[in-house]
Amino acid sequence: MTTKQNIEEGTEFIPKFDDNGLITVIAQDEKTGQILMVAYMNRQALDLTIQTGYATYFSRSRQKLWKKGEESGHLQKVRKILVDCDQDCLVLKVTVDSGQCHVGYQSCFYRALKDNTNNSLEFIEKKVYCPKETYGK
Amino acid sequence: MTTKQNIEEGTEFIPKFDDNGLITVIAQDEKTGQILMVAYMNRQALDLTIQTGYATYFSRSRQKLWKKGEESGHLQKVRKILVDCDQDCLVLKVTVDSGQCHVGYQSCFYRALKDNTNNSLEFIEKKVYCPKETYGK
Repeated sequence: MTTKQNIEEGTEFIPKFDDNGLITVIAQDEKTGQILMVAYMNRQALDLTIQTGYATYFSRSRQKLWKKGEESGHLQKVRKILVDCDQDCLVLKVTVDSGQCHVGYQSCFYRALKDNTNNSLEFIEKKVYCPKETYGK
Repeated sequence: MTTKQNIEEGTEFIPKFDDNGLITVIAQDEKTGQILMVAYMNRQALDLTIQTGYATYFSRSRQKLWKKGEESGHLQKVRKILVDCDQDCLVLKVTVDSGQCHVGYQSCFYRALKDNTNNSLEFIEKKVYCPKETYGK
């Protein structure tokens, strides 16, 4: 039986997929600690990630498996897979090259809410590559 | 009109809430870069977080607003709110004291998948407080 105790304090990996069969996954640069992106995995994507050592996600918009970097070349080599207390979220500690976001930045989190506003963003990163050259081929 | 261009390259903060009115939020220790937890906010929780400077989430299990630390005392002082390219996920850079996870660890991500297994976890952190003493009162 899977109890709260097993899930939170045990050593059995029992990832909890949501009603759509997905689990939330955060990719974090192992070296710098920077959060690169958030995506989703189904069971198959998770199994492929564990088997191959490279991150494979499930694209909700395209409704199919998506090996990160299959088009751009910006793969994510998985060094460690962490799971949270209720096992419904994963952190991948990854080794990456430059440019993980499709918009051209190293991280998808390249903007921050400006201080003392509730609707205005400021850019906190510079682009590290040109997406048109990478994806426009 | 909100275009993909506006959302990804603009400076307007247009957080995208899902069908349940929620957005995924990652709390990251500003100092160490450690990912502490993942939770959800509805519009009201986000507004309260911006207004007060302390993280307020929406508890899916209890279906109500939940100021992080209201019971345990382990508040999250928000230093920066980052948003990702498609604006459906936030990172809070927070300042915290010791012990952010209700199980007793600093982070909710206190276990990792063991190398060369697909179902076995190992603990990668030590408890920093006793939950029974904090929550058992």
